[in-house]
Amino acid sequence: MIAKSKLKYIQSLGHKKLRDEADLFVVEGPKMVAEILSEKLLQVTELYALLDWVTANEQLLKNLPSSVVVHTIDNISLAKISQLTTPNKVLAVVKQQPLIATINTSQLALVLDTIQDPGNLGTIIRIADWFGIQQIICSHECADRYNPKVVQSTMGSIARVGFYYTNLVDFLMANKQTQIYAAALDGMSVQKLGKLAGGLLVIGNESKGISAPVMDLVNVRITIPRIGLAESLNAAVATGIILSHVTM
Amino acid sequence: MIAKSKLKYIQSLGHKKLRDEADLFVVEGPKMVAEILSEKLLQVTELYALLDWVTANEQLLKNLPSSVVVHTIDNISLAKISQLTTPNKVLAVVKQQPLIATINTSQLALVLDTIQDPGNLGTIIRIADWFGIQQIICSHECADRYNPKVVQSTMGSIARVGFYYTNLVDFLMANKQTQIYAAALDGMSVQKLGKLAGGLLVIGNESKGISAPVMDLVNVRITIPRIGLAESLNAAVATGIILSHVTM
Repeated sequence: MIAKSKLKYIQSLGHKKLRDEADLFVVEGPKMVAEILSEKLLQVTELYALLDWVTANEQLLKNLPSSVVVHTIDNISLAKISQLTTPNKVLAVVKQQPLIATINTSQLALVLDTIQDPGNLGTIIRIADWFGIQQIICSHECADRYNPKVVQSTMGSIARVGFYYTNLVDFLMANKQTQIYAAALDGMSVQKLGKLAGGLLVIGNESKGISAPVMDLVNVRITIPRIGLAESLNAAVATGIILSHVTM
Repeated sequence: MIAKSKLKYIQSLGHKKLRDEADLFVVEGPKMVAEILSEKLLQVTELYALLDWVTANEQLLKNLPSSVVVHTIDNISLAKISQLTTPNKVLAVVKQQPLIATINTSQLALVLDTIQDPGNLGTIIRIADWFGIQQIICSHECADRYNPKVVQSTMGSIARVGFYYTNLVDFLMANKQTQIYAAALDGMSVQKLGKLAGGLLVIGNESKGISAPVMDLVNVRITIPRIGLAESLNAAVATGIILSHVTM
């Protein structure tokens, strides 16, 4: 059993405003919870788990800081607090990581203009982590980094990449001395760029692209040459392709 | 109004077995329907559309072959036949394209091992079309090319790429003289491959990867070097990255 107030409180973490007030978010499922616990990637405050998960993870639980409260609950309670269509054994309540205080433009950073689809944002976070990008600057219109669908699709990458939410025009204006790259249809071939030492790479919304005032601030337009006839590439796929050419 | 028998018939095209028997599939929404009509990419047999779509597309409709039957229907009927969460003005019933009869291995072709997620398959089809890949060989475990979610996420690319469904082990055994490439964690860097003139590129299921009997038949393992710590890349993203390095 789980107290009604506790239930409401965990459910409230599904909403951005309430999870930001609590400074917490939720991670679910044995694979991702095991990753954040064993690698100490994030600060877990509470665990809600089925008895079989608790039994199977005795060793992992023994090594936890004493501040972590472990609640053994039943299937019915788990279904009530879970954000997943199919609740999966364990749910962790986790402290949010601070946003980045200062962007270091001597390292390449991603700038996301209105990536609203949580699945796309999650995929981009994993791609960034794969290619060693540690800073993601999001417009206020982007999906929230702690949206449950974002979190679940990133695995541990959510903990290894730093975030900054801002007005992109103001941010790029303040970083005018930096090279600002963007994916566009009429730019320089991605193959000719070579390895980029630093700067900002802007990725736009898949259907609307990069907004005009943001594009006006871009110095170098990058194009993925099209051999066939497809209308466009998915924003996450374009991010992966560009990073694979400019980070290695 | 739409006759009950017609309604049932169109709804039946949501199921693979029934749409294969009818040799038809469904395309929805103004953007994709306009693309296939204006570019004559596919053979449309019937259109079901709201009056405002019919009025706005008079010119397009005038140029259609007389065999295309246009039904003006209301919102309620459209909602009943649509596979979309939000029905979108027009639905086309379209003839299936024949599967590829013979694979031409002098051109690079994609081989998909158990890509079950329709969204992933649709994204891969668009990527293939972007990079000029015209042949996709799917294992029987892949999603169906005419699954509504696949079709809607490919736009016109579904019509420009050829498909072949087969047992991959038998197929690869029969093509042993061909170079067989695969994405793997322990291969040659994708940057060192150069442009590939032909051959087969195997992409595996995201969580399970490439099945062992298929991997045994691979000649060249390709790796996307990992700089950071992400656990894996999405199958579609990996496909896009590899194709961007080996087709241009």
